[in-house]
Amino acid sequence: MLNVEHIGIAVKELEKSEKLFSALFNVAPYKRETVQSEKVSTSFFQINQTKIELLEATSPDSVIAGFIEKKGEGFHHIAFEVEDIESEMLRLQNEGFTLLNNVPKIGADNKLVCFLHPKSTNGILIELCQEIR
Amino acid sequence: MLNVEHIGIAVKELEKSEKLFSALFNVAPYKRETVQSEKVSTSFFQINQTKIELLEATSPDSVIAGFIEKKGEGFHHIAFEVEDIESEMLRLQNEGFTLLNNVPKIGADNKLVCFLHPKSTNGILIELCQEIR
Repeated sequence: MLNVEHIGIAVKELEKSEKLFSALFNVAPYKRETVQSEKVSTSFFQINQTKIELLEATSPDSVIAGFIEKKGEGFHHIAFEVEDIESEMLRLQNEGFTLLNNVPKIGADNKLVCFLHPKSTNGILIELCQEIR
Repeated sequence: MLNVEHIGIAVKELEKSEKLFSALFNVAPYKRETVQSEKVSTSFFQINQTKIELLEATSPDSVIAGFIEKKGEGFHHIAFEVEDIESEMLRLQNEGFTLLNNVPKIGADNKLVCFLHPKSTNGILIELCQEIR
């Protein structure tokens, strides 16, 4: 794993949380992006090498809506940048981790992504991501 | 905020989780440290500029024990490195955030630390930390 690429935070109201985190970090978000396939609107802050990604559901059947209903707003996932996502997925599968998708899928921010099941990772939803080159 | 200094993860059994995260990151923890004042044993992994800190309670009245009882294992806090913790605490208090300690206290890893109440930060426990120079 090369880097903590970003930390994902589930929020109910993106605009309200953007203001809150802008005040916290003393910096404005540098972009917004909607990921249709995931039914989320996202907003990104850059803190040195790591991004903070706020995630708001765009539909009641978005995974973010389900997450907030069950657990409330807060930490959602942590994303690690990897050099080669397919070889890393294979390595982790061989180590006994459970992949939530067996083929890399396209996520926000021009990335190929794969999630690991939190039951295999101490309750933490882990994302692997690799820049699409 | 200069950097995501570390991400804290609450675990029930440090040794078991050390093995799990070693397999996940493909790297061994670089140190263990007990913080008596916080009643925790910690184990640190380094992923580029960010550390992952596993936290195990050393006593049933540790905040980590209480956290796990309420929420289970998983994300506990995120720590941001700051240049000058006292001026940052003052700035955030003026922005309306609730500080959990009004004077910096000594945390793990030779740091002065201050926590912000999650109710003022979208459900995320935020730690500010500054290296003791």
